[in-house]
Amino acid sequence: MRILVLGGDGYLGWPTALHLSDRGHQVAVADSFVRRQYDHELGVWSLVPIEPLPVRTRAWHEVSGHSISAFVGDLTDAEFTYRIVREFRPDTIVHFAEQRSAPYSEIDRKHAVYTQVNNVVGTLNLLYAIAEIDRDIHLVKLGTMGEYGTPDIDIEEGWLEVTHKGRTDRMLYPKRPGSFYHLSKVHDSHNIEFACRIWGLRATDLNQGVVYGQQTPQTALEDRLATRFDYDAIFGTVLNRFVVQAVLGEPLTIYGEGGQTRGVIDIRDTVECLRITAEQPAARGEFRVFNQMTESFTVTEIAKVVATAFSGEVGIENLDNPRVESETHYYNVVHSGLVELGLTPHCLSDTLITSMFEVAERYKHRVDRDALLPLVNWRRTANQVRPS
Amino acid sequence: MRILVLGGDGYLGWPTALHLSDRGHQVAVADSFVRRQYDHELGVWSLVPIEPLPVRTRAWHEVSGHSISAFVGDLTDAEFTYRIVREFRPDTIVHFAEQRSAPYSEIDRKHAVYTQVNNVVGTLNLLYAIAEIDRDIHLVKLGTMGEYGTPDIDIEEGWLEVTHKGRTDRMLYPKRPGSFYHLSKVHDSHNIEFACRIWGLRATDLNQGVVYGQQTPQTALEDRLATRFDYDAIFGTVLNRFVVQAVLGEPLTIYGEGGQTRGVIDIRDTVECLRITAEQPAARGEFRVFNQMTESFTVTEIAKVVATAFSGEVGIENLDNPRVESETHYYNVVHSGLVELGLTPHCLSDTLITSMFEVAERYKHRVDRDALLPLVNWRRTANQVRPS
Repeated sequence: MRILVLGGDGYLGWPTALHLSDRGHQVAVADSFVRRQYDHELGVWSLVPIEPLPVRTRAWHEVSGHSISAFVGDLTDAEFTYRIVREFRPDTIVHFAEQRSAPYSEIDRKHAVYTQVNNVVGTLNLLYAIAEIDRDIHLVKLGTMGEYGTPDIDIEEGWLEVTHKGRTDRMLYPKRPGSFYHLSKVHDSHNIEFACRIWGLRATDLNQGVVYGQQTPQTALEDRLATRFDYDAIFGTVLNRFVVQAVLGEPLTIYGEGGQTRGVIDIRDTVECLRITAEQPAARGEFRVFNQMTESFTVTEIAKVVATAFSGEVGIENLDNPRVESETHYYNVVHSGLVELGLTPHCLSDTLITSMFEVAERYKHRVDRDALLPLVNWRRTANQVRPS
Repeated sequence: MRILVLGGDGYLGWPTALHLSDRGHQVAVADSFVRRQYDHELGVWSLVPIEPLPVRTRAWHEVSGHSISAFVGDLTDAEFTYRIVREFRPDTIVHFAEQRSAPYSEIDRKHAVYTQVNNVVGTLNLLYAIAEIDRDIHLVKLGTMGEYGTPDIDIEEGWLEVTHKGRTDRMLYPKRPGSFYHLSKVHDSHNIEFACRIWGLRATDLNQGVVYGQQTPQTALEDRLATRFDYDAIFGTVLNRFVVQAVLGEPLTIYGEGGQTRGVIDIRDTVECLRITAEQPAARGEFRVFNQMTESFTVTEIAKVVATAFSGEVGIENLDNPRVESETHYYNVVHSGLVELGLTPHCLSDTLITSMFEVAERYKHRVDRDALLPLVNWRRTANQVRPS
């Protein structure tokens, strides 16, 4: 298949592009490099050094013999978006190209507005480009488990059969997310479902859990193919951050009581979910939703897994929760759709964590400890993200 | 109370400002006049001539002795939004200041993006302004019944008690709207609910039905106080458009079969709902939702009401439906919240329609018949809004 990976220079976009290319698909990536710009804005960089995109694609060609072409531009520039769809003529578009950090969106008004405009407009432009150029293209869009919030009933895959006053309908699952970022993805989901309805587009919305890990079989082939490893309080996901804290001899910092439960997924499963979804597209007019996660843990449980796996002493510290969220709640998620399509999940195991400790150990001299502090408080309307 | 009416130069914002001022509230309006700019873009103007805002407020002062102050600017300009909240220090903000036409949002990509960015960013800026300046301000936000779509179960007021697999939760009512405009209001609702949760704001979301009528007791006092009367296919609401078609001797044009059911409300009830809501605010942290409509009719029934009330011959013509929507569906809406707070609804009666015929008769020489044609087709990605 011809697969266009938007945000293909990012933490997950790059390993996904490699995985799809490795499996024989014709892959192109598009990226604006704005994720690298956030690094400069925030003054914190990937723990693992990453190469510029042209070096990455050249290295991949040397190692695998496969080519990945690259488009440089931003989806909010509609001309760019139309051009890449017209030129590459993909069968599938995998869309990672959004601002993806909840704390980043909560820094202040400008970051909230930026996140929602960037994500919503980029996706709208893409929907129009598909509708105008080729309505048969399968859009595979990255959503987040955070769209659902923490309802007191089971979380289904995007749709919910509701019986009310003796009548029944299949409805979109009600969303109640926990940040302006998560809200942007809720907005996207509503817009995409509408585009499927009016234009007969085919789309799969992948509500992904918290991703952990840094290596896939392809990125591990050589250093130039490495993907990002974010450990900071803005972009670092919780397990990755705990691994770095353990290696540094810092306590693992839990926000609040730590009873918050999250769906998680191994980075190797993420890229495989993308392949499975691309190869088995949604039907024309279908808005298909999968919950892209394999297990659920409380934050405290995640900390304990890391502490147990680490060879040295590890402390755990509960901080005041900078977020507004339930710290004890019901959480039971249906996530069978991708398994039915063929996913065999990697479960959170000491093996993987051991390899992450090795990565963190190798690059720990690059850590800025101040960047571990959660400085963005949801209750405030403006936050300073670097210690003054 | 001190009440700031955003979009206070518009079809409903202006009569609302007059009604609140008449009842003794301290009223200020804010407007960017972009609604008047759409007239020039589309080449069609209000059937009833309307005065510029300064003439309107001067006339109101002469007639009533009350003053309405005016701020000129756009909510997407955050500095403006913060300034008006700081300077006027309202107890209540009534927010009509959004692009409000579904067909306008469906013209093409630019209009869809404009509608979502304008509406979502304006409301985000407002939420931040309230959170920063005074979290006690009550936000009264105009939503639309179109946010719900046409589910096969009863439509409740914003929230729904869901029982699923033996567990129960009170959830946001699932939304499945029918245009990029309606989607923008769904996005707003999600953003506002979140702001109530994280900042303890108080908000009422008024999901309004299709408004009909053009006069309130205050706007009818003299010509300079008149509000808009839109009859065109882009901004005209269905009953108002039918009244104009009847007076012109044109057939009433129904889109498709006409079995689409819509909630409707008399303009005199709209302004009263706003007063009632402002005077009985939501609690701190509460996201309160009312369905601001008084009756439901199919489009065919609305056409028959107009045809029966009109003294002359009236034809009815079914056009190919330019929208993508169900033409026969279940529709049963709970709308008791505002009645419980004190609304006594005007029901659709011949009396009101007769006064509308008089208005249409007086100004029928101003009609551009071409503007009645529905040229915006939901299935297309680009539409020409004026006949070529």
